[in-house]
Amino acid sequence: MKADLLVHSAAQLCVIPPHDDGPQRGRSLGDLGLIEDGAVACVDGRIAAVGPTAEIRADWWAAVEIDAAGCVVCPGFVDPHTHVVWAGDRADEFALRIGGATYQEIMARGGGIMSTVRATRAASPTQLLAASRPRLERMLAHGTTTVEVKTGYGLTVADELKMLQVIAALEMSHPISLVPTFLGAHAIPAEYQGDPDGYVDLVVQEMLPAIDAHEMRPFAHLPTPLYCDVFCDQGAFTLEQSRRILEAARGLGLGLKIHADEFANLGGAALAIEWGAASADHLVCTPAEEIQQFGSCDTVAVSLPATPFGLGHCTYSPAGAILDAGGILALASDCNPGTAWCESMPFVIALACRYLRITPAQALVAATLNSAHAVGLGNEVGSLQEGRAADVLVVDLPSVEHLGYRFGTRPVKRVVKGGRVVV
Amino acid sequence: MKADLLVHSAAQLCVIPPHDDGPQRGRSLGDLGLIEDGAVACVDGRIAAVGPTAEIRADWWAAVEIDAAGCVVCPGFVDPHTHVVWAGDRADEFALRIGGATYQEIMARGGGIMSTVRATRAASPTQLLAASRPRLERMLAHGTTTVEVKTGYGLTVADELKMLQVIAALEMSHPISLVPTFLGAHAIPAEYQGDPDGYVDLVVQEMLPAIDAHEMRPFAHLPTPLYCDVFCDQGAFTLEQSRRILEAARGLGLGLKIHADEFANLGGAALAIEWGAASADHLVCTPAEEIQQFGSCDTVAVSLPATPFGLGHCTYSPAGAILDAGGILALASDCNPGTAWCESMPFVIALACRYLRITPAQALVAATLNSAHAVGLGNEVGSLQEGRAADVLVVDLPSVEHLGYRFGTRPVKRVVKGGRVVV
Repeated sequence: MKADLLVHSAAQLCVIPPHDDGPQRGRSLGDLGLIEDGAVACVDGRIAAVGPTAEIRADWWAAVEIDAAGCVVCPGFVDPHTHVVWAGDRADEFALRIGGATYQEIMARGGGIMSTVRATRAASPTQLLAASRPRLERMLAHGTTTVEVKTGYGLTVADELKMLQVIAALEMSHPISLVPTFLGAHAIPAEYQGDPDGYVDLVVQEMLPAIDAHEMRPFAHLPTPLYCDVFCDQGAFTLEQSRRILEAARGLGLGLKIHADEFANLGGAALAIEWGAASADHLVCTPAEEIQQFGSCDTVAVSLPATPFGLGHCTYSPAGAILDAGGILALASDCNPGTAWCESMPFVIALACRYLRITPAQALVAATLNSAHAVGLGNEVGSLQEGRAADVLVVDLPSVEHLGYRFGTRPVKRVVKGGRVVV
Repeated sequence: MKADLLVHSAAQLCVIPPHDDGPQRGRSLGDLGLIEDGAVACVDGRIAAVGPTAEIRADWWAAVEIDAAGCVVCPGFVDPHTHVVWAGDRADEFALRIGGATYQEIMARGGGIMSTVRATRAASPTQLLAASRPRLERMLAHGTTTVEVKTGYGLTVADELKMLQVIAALEMSHPISLVPTFLGAHAIPAEYQGDPDGYVDLVVQEMLPAIDAHEMRPFAHLPTPLYCDVFCDQGAFTLEQSRRILEAARGLGLGLKIHADEFANLGGAALAIEWGAASADHLVCTPAEEIQQFGSCDTVAVSLPATPFGLGHCTYSPAGAILDAGGILALASDCNPGTAWCESMPFVIALACRYLRITPAQALVAATLNSAHAVGLGNEVGSLQEGRAADVLVVDLPSVEHLGYRFGTRPVKRVVKGGRVVV
């Protein structure tokens, strides 16, 4: 049969099989479904067949072939937590942090998120798109083929909608698939500093209802809902405020996510689990009893090690405890201008191996199959199983172990998105 | 006048001026000599002129021009401590370390350095060169234009000479300038496990005398000596053994270097200073009284933050104390297959900003001018002053602050080596 594309002769081809049609839970994390001298055939943007090169070659031929000899072939990375659409930068604040200022101190000075909010509000949609596109280019070059992108630098009805429109325009014009998340509750804007509940009212009563189904049309081809996220943490939103926002979002049929326990434990992870959120993210200072709950729910525990790293901290998510509890662990970049301007999932994997103490195989599954589940695309991407989107990486490393072992450089050699060679 | 190459319109051009014709010491570290809208003219592989674009354009024209608008232009990175020539890999050992084994435990099992020694001994010179060249390619792509390279995976007379020959062949055949260092005392090889002093005898009585001036000819164009280094640490060589080796090397006219205080303090830094070594490297657990001595000597304190990072540790060199003492701080990658397979100096800078708590400007000087002094090339490279080698980077960042702020990706856009555009 004729395929559109054949990637063949991979030293290691990682299928990353779902377990029970779902993510890889707990200590079963790290099943790569390795095929030596493997090949994958792509037809109409989908995986048509995967197996040993000799077997695939017996059934398939293609005009376009990629020789992956000496390389690892795996699914494209799914980065399930980013803030990659923003204007301006925070290089000045970085210098303050080196000088010892904490993230909360910088926020209190009107820096931090609010400085990005000012720049993002001031930017036209065109400027915002132009500022964000090079970051998506770097993500793609480093192997990310699906990325979740949050709003949350607008914090007015109009500016949050502007961010959603820019995310939609990028989805339409860039090879990466973008999954949108509404994060009106990213910070309490300056104009509501004395009245945080008034801002929550705005989010619940005006922002959420303003999101028109019409604007979600560019994402209709992805079988995932629009998500609503809340930054439930010290200096951001309380547990009660977070509950109000997520309740309203659920009423509107949105998927739920939460930023929990990045700096302080307010109970956000338990709230996410109680409400059946798709994911609870950060989880740096989550107490053991809340970690335990990840073992009996489908809420994905998303760790973002680039954030403590970006902040120069040494405390990371308790990944071992999440796995011991039987939880679903995923990895994300958190790409953002304040704490982690990093577009590279291979670097996130290298961090995870060292500071979450998980193996390269576990990190790879956490950055593909499991992270796909964190954005509702667990049956669409993140695995090279037949029928899934043909998002395929050729990584210039002789084995998966090298993915975490080496760091600081770009191991990805070729990127296939929806069956098309894009890098 | 006609130049061979003109790099112009840089948003920030960093001359990195020497202080008193030398490195930037102590808290004076970080003087970039910034020129806005800057240009540099290169003639015969040297910097012919540097200044504002309008002034340079008034005096110079060139057939080859690089428009550096929106970019930082700075000297090529000098990486003054690497082990980039090796055969094999240690991906298996990385998995053991994730599981909790210490570096010393792995060494005690015959893993660690000895596994690379076995692979390097087994490799032909051609194989060793072929294995190392892609790593130099990645270094160059990330902006390193001068690199120190150590032997130390041979540990026999013949295999140490083989490594020196491969380093010489790379110097002759690759754009990067290589500075060779003899590190026969990298580890006590298996065959001398019960007789470490017998191995020191071999180093002193046979290896050092075997290094023929003839073999150093490929490096004659660089005004730097051959260096001799010793790994003075727990599990490696004692202070007394280190002293014997450095004494013999000094007698032969070699420059001196030392690995000190990576894991335990044996007094190696003080030894290096006492003997006027070019550099003392690692310096993770150096006590305050030894750090203080860096203020009154020309021995460069070389920090290698990729090594604690690679090991998943959280303790780094006390850079602030080195600067407070008035010492000369430099940065290196330590690129090696055990603890830090990392070819990227931009990543080392990002680490240094976070975990050594130095500014991007300080890190940039530490990775150029000061690191040039660590390899005896302080008057040759590491600065864009007139007369120096035309090793110039165009970095796709709007200001130097972004160099440490962003991480995990490759900010270097173009690399000029000896006046020639090589990336």
